[in-house]
Amino acid sequence: MKSIEWRENGVRILDQTRLPGEVRYRLLSSVEEVAEAIKRLEVRGAPLIGVTAAYGIALAAVKHTGDRESLKNELIRSSEILVNTRPTAVNLRWAVERMMQVYHASSHLELDAIRERLVAEARRMEEEDLHQNMRIGELGADLLPEDARVLTICNAGALATCGHGTALGLVRSAFSRGRVKKVWACETRPVLQGSRLTVWELAEDEIPVTLITDNMAGYVMRSGQVDVVVTGADRIAANGDTANKIGTYGLAVLAHHHRIPFIVAAPFSSIDLSIPDGEKIPIEFRDPDEVRKVGGLLITLPEAEVLNPAFDVTPGELITAIVTERGVARPPYLSSLANLNKKGREESYEL
Amino acid sequence: MKSIEWRENGVRILDQTRLPGEVRYRLLSSVEEVAEAIKRLEVRGAPLIGVTAAYGIALAAVKHTGDRESLKNELIRSSEILVNTRPTAVNLRWAVERMMQVYHASSHLELDAIRERLVAEARRMEEEDLHQNMRIGELGADLLPEDARVLTICNAGALATCGHGTALGLVRSAFSRGRVKKVWACETRPVLQGSRLTVWELAEDEIPVTLITDNMAGYVMRSGQVDVVVTGADRIAANGDTANKIGTYGLAVLAHHHRIPFIVAAPFSSIDLSIPDGEKIPIEFRDPDEVRKVGGLLITLPEAEVLNPAFDVTPGELITAIVTERGVARPPYLSSLANLNKKGREESYEL
Repeated sequence: MKSIEWRENGVRILDQTRLPGEVRYRLLSSVEEVAEAIKRLEVRGAPLIGVTAAYGIALAAVKHTGDRESLKNELIRSSEILVNTRPTAVNLRWAVERMMQVYHASSHLELDAIRERLVAEARRMEEEDLHQNMRIGELGADLLPEDARVLTICNAGALATCGHGTALGLVRSAFSRGRVKKVWACETRPVLQGSRLTVWELAEDEIPVTLITDNMAGYVMRSGQVDVVVTGADRIAANGDTANKIGTYGLAVLAHHHRIPFIVAAPFSSIDLSIPDGEKIPIEFRDPDEVRKVGGLLITLPEAEVLNPAFDVTPGELITAIVTERGVARPPYLSSLANLNKKGREESYEL
Repeated sequence: MKSIEWRENGVRILDQTRLPGEVRYRLLSSVEEVAEAIKRLEVRGAPLIGVTAAYGIALAAVKHTGDRESLKNELIRSSEILVNTRPTAVNLRWAVERMMQVYHASSHLELDAIRERLVAEARRMEEEDLHQNMRIGELGADLLPEDARVLTICNAGALATCGHGTALGLVRSAFSRGRVKKVWACETRPVLQGSRLTVWELAEDEIPVTLITDNMAGYVMRSGQVDVVVTGADRIAANGDTANKIGTYGLAVLAHHHRIPFIVAAPFSSIDLSIPDGEKIPIEFRDPDEVRKVGGLLITLPEAEVLNPAFDVTPGELITAIVTERGVARPPYLSSLANLNKKGREESYEL
């Protein structure tokens, strides 16, 4: 199973809206198709969205046939289309900006050379993502207790990344060391990434998983069946405030109430030091029909008034640790995240 | 809309599994059909289950054709069938016991007179339930702030009772006094009583309601959009610990974290003073397919491991007030509930 793959004539993705019923791959052959696939959640998960957008830029370059000036315009247009697909995850903007930096640094070259560099950069980001997740897994696995019963929400797994996963990467690494007893997967309404994706992905790897509805998390915590909560992140502010899938904040409050550690696992590219705190993270509101329907089936009145925020913000105070490929940050995050950032600039990373 | 009605030849119920798509009534013509309708959630809500079971006993008596001894056996058999349908709500057992007391007190009468008394008692319980809910509404409405934005879970409304409702009865009474601005309805997975029943019921009465998924409650509280949480109850222990729909406990923890009042509205028959605390309340675990499917549609792997507790227990410490028809109990509940119980024994209630 590969969530994303570069092909001669486009970007091949696994259409995650059809899982687990159907494992279907799609070839996206234009930047518009890439943007649409991101909006429709065919590809989702902050790290995977970033790499997909990078491939979108590469694809725009490869498909382009005009002169130097029109290539530039096409890449700027593509950047805007991609950046505007989803507002909350910062990896998307980060990936597009990184691709545009490569473009600007190579804009004096032959057009074919520019195209090659862009494809190479997107491929590199895909590889980096996998390696970062392996590293997050190694570092984070140490934080879990023996025989850990881990509760998670949404899918921050191989399907949300280019392999291994962030939150589930940590679980995978810990499981391979014999430290994980079971995973509680919250189904994650409205789009059900937990029941559809996390259950499927963990079952494929034979990691024991029990599915619950989101409102059962309090019950399993209070009955002493959860040792640690591990989630991914869509954007982390300088003070550690973390935007992630709607419902994450509620789990953090519950974990705090039950004195259960709450761990966030994310690549450093999810950290947005330009934002002081969670107040400034834009929250995406999605189509009310995601709440009114499940798999096309109406579960309420067709005109029911609905609120559908796709994310919420968990304050840093409720987070025990943030695990990145650069190291584990602990409160207070203002200093610990700044230190990891400094470390990143000083070190050179080899794949 | 009447959730339940006694007919010459049986008990007519509104089949709540089909709402809001279809408003369909069913005539239950044997105690077995009554028990099955309770198990399948065609009738649900602790107060309504109680009255339905009472009608089940009346129905068994009316349909019975044998001698005095066989009537007794039939009523004992019917009691057992009904009491074993669902373990958590105490109203069910309470209602069946009350009917059997009436039977024992009238067992010396002609068989037809016994039957008449049983039907009359069940009818009285239906009327009492409505009157109790009106009283709960009156008493509870005073507890809401002006322009209250009320969050609720499941359906503790007219559909869960013989009219008006408990939690939603309180909302209705407060709304008629101009004190309610809006209601947040949590969809209440797995069976979706919030999206299917509460949204429908409030829309019928033109009370503004906004539907959210259960995991959005933290978001709306943190963003300052909830003034009070009001829920029903399936069983309340002597110390105020309250069993209610799964997810209620999580809402109570969130409300506590945000300093939002958390109010329970229930008839006094939901209070089980024979149980010291919530530990002793039996929790019903239901079919895993309720979690694996929505409206027959599979949303995960068919063999996914699932936990499906139908209820959780909210400790009394997290409850701001318990509103019953006998008065409003405040912490500490051990004394305040005992006082309401004493008051109930001393007063005689007229309809």
